Amino acid sequence: MQDLDSAGITEAVLAQMADTPDARLREIADAAVRHLHDFAREVNLKPDEWLAGIAFMTAVGQACTPYRQEFILLSDVLGLSRLVNVMHDVTGREAAGTETSLLGPFFREQAPKIALGDSIAKIGQGEEIMIFGQVTDAAGKGVPGAQVDVWQTDAEGAYDLQAHDPTVMDMRGQFRCDAEGRFRFRTVRPLGYMIPMDGPVGDLINRQHRHGYRPAHIHFLISAPEYRELVTALYFADDEHVDSDTVFGVSRSLVISPAVGVEGAPDPAVPSIRYDFCLSRETEEGGGRVGSDPSKLMPASG
Amino acid sequence: MQDLDSAGITEAVLAQMADTPDARLREIADAAVRHLHDFAREVNLKPDEWLAGIAFMTAVGQACTPYRQEFILLSDVLGLSRLVNVMHDVTGREAAGTETSLLGPFFREQAPKIALGDSIAKIGQGEEIMIFGQVTDAAGKGVPGAQVDVWQTDAEGAYDLQAHDPTVMDMRGQFRCDAEGRFRFRTVRPLGYMIPMDGPVGDLINRQHRHGYRPAHIHFLISAPEYRELVTALYFADDEHVDSDTVFGVSRSLVISPAVGVEGAPDPAVPSIRYDFCLSRETEEGGGRVGSDPSKLMPASG
Ligand SMILES: [Fe+2]
Ligand SMILES: [Fe+2]
Repeated sequence: MQDLDSAGITEAVLAQMADTPDARLREIADAAVRHLHDFAREVNLKPDEWLAGIAFMTAVGQACTPYRQEFILLSDVLGLSRLVNVMHDVTGREAAGTETSLLGPFFREQAPKIALGDSIAKIGQGEEIMIFGQVTDAAGKGVPGAQVDVWQTDAEGAYDLQAHDPTVMDMRGQFRCDAEGRFRFRTVRPLGYMIPMDGPVGDLINRQHRHGYRPAHIHFLISAPEYRELVTALYFADDEHVDSDTVFGVSRSLVISPAVGVEGAPDPAVPSIRYDFCLSRETEEGGGRVGSDPSKLMPASG
Repeated sequence: MQDLDSAGITEAVLAQMADTPDARLREIADAAVRHLHDFAREVNLKPDEWLAGIAFMTAVGQACTPYRQEFILLSDVLGLSRLVNVMHDVTGREAAGTETSLLGPFFREQAPKIALGDSIAKIGQGEEIMIFGQVTDAAGKGVPGAQVDVWQTDAEGAYDLQAHDPTVMDMRGQFRCDAEGRFRFRTVRPLGYMIPMDGPVGDLINRQHRHGYRPAHIHFLISAPEYRELVTALYFADDEHVDSDTVFGVSRSLVISPAVGVEGAPDPAVPSIRYDFCLSRETEEGGGRVGSDPSKLMPASG
């Protein structure tokens, strides 16, 4: 029988978890308990505050549906998703490639296939821009036939799922680079948008007097055999929120500005962006994507 | 535009939360983010592990119903509830009173009123025991007419809600102490029980090779005007899990053993426990109970 003071409780919990057979689960649970307790001690968490926290976590969990992942959104606005991304960028690959950014909740499998040079904006209207470049390895050599998925909001800041009947796909496409890894496609300039503000995470953002916006961006998911899948996004330099993204997705190397007269632009009349993506090889087990289809994260019912 | 390394992300999040008008929310959110990020950095959290964590939290939230609070259960098995209890015990009251213990999810308002000396076991069968003592202030002076709620499992380890139609209350009662704060009641010896193991918290407990049991105990909620409400429990010394409570509720001062021949026992033929409860006065705003009716923690629907 031990009498537990506030430090002793932590030791007692660690002792009770010490027989966990999975060494990695044990390591993660140990650290989670130590940091959770340190947090509670640091702020001297009061019972009614603890209860408010329980109610908040419950509301976040209950807000999740097959179409909405409120816990990922919470992770995003607390910077955890970005942190996991950044740590993953420096782990287990042979050389630094293009920086990653958040997958977000709007990736869809089976986007429409387009030919090089086509537009992904079939319905979406707006200022036409063109994006071209090359997918290379760490040595700058083109990766033949790299597979690219691209998706973005329209000029009103809505993804297809938000703008139309969800069976209609628009402002997204899938294509294969050429034998030198080169690609080009047309689209319209996207608009930034607010994260979903009608749930408990939005309430938190409001209580924190944060604006809730993401700067305009275009998502990319690029893969090729033997390379680590690259999940990233390009951000528009002139968006007023480019320095204050609510989910901390922006890094300097991912900021772009379309312009006319870019060297090598396939269509000199259209404002263009040249961006070369660099893939790196895995040197150890990769660890997966930071993000997922919300429907895959729902517990089996019943 | 800042480039964020893994430490810089934390700074960026704190900066974005810096305008939170509620100073206490800001303090708590700041600490939560710092400890959350420290945790992720310490274990070098991988994307697939992050995703498993998101799925786990989602499952915990989705397991909550008006009758079940899986996040409180998670807080309990991680020792957080006990930690908040212990910190509350040493904060904002004039003197140390009886140690507190977890409220748990089985407290019900409006338990049957009993007279001093009556049994709370109307349906429950088992070995009869008697509990008597005095509710005092910090100076040992009786608190006249203190109000006591008591509840426990039956001899099979089930609360009334689990054993019967939920409209039937048994193994619980409410009474008022006499003018010297003295009380006595009869009951049957409770049995320990497993926490609910059919949800995500139970899965975690299984993966950690923990037994999942709570030792046999009797809950008390004691109140009197001008004193801090006392939420505690008495634990049976001979229970095999008294040193390894899955929710860390036990402290040495709360462990009891019924025996015949206890001095002052109202009925010498019945194994008895004498326990005096000591209330303390609040010196600042109390902060509430560690625990709650699950139905009060559900987000409003719609
Ligand atoms: Fe996005
Ligand atoms: Fe209990």
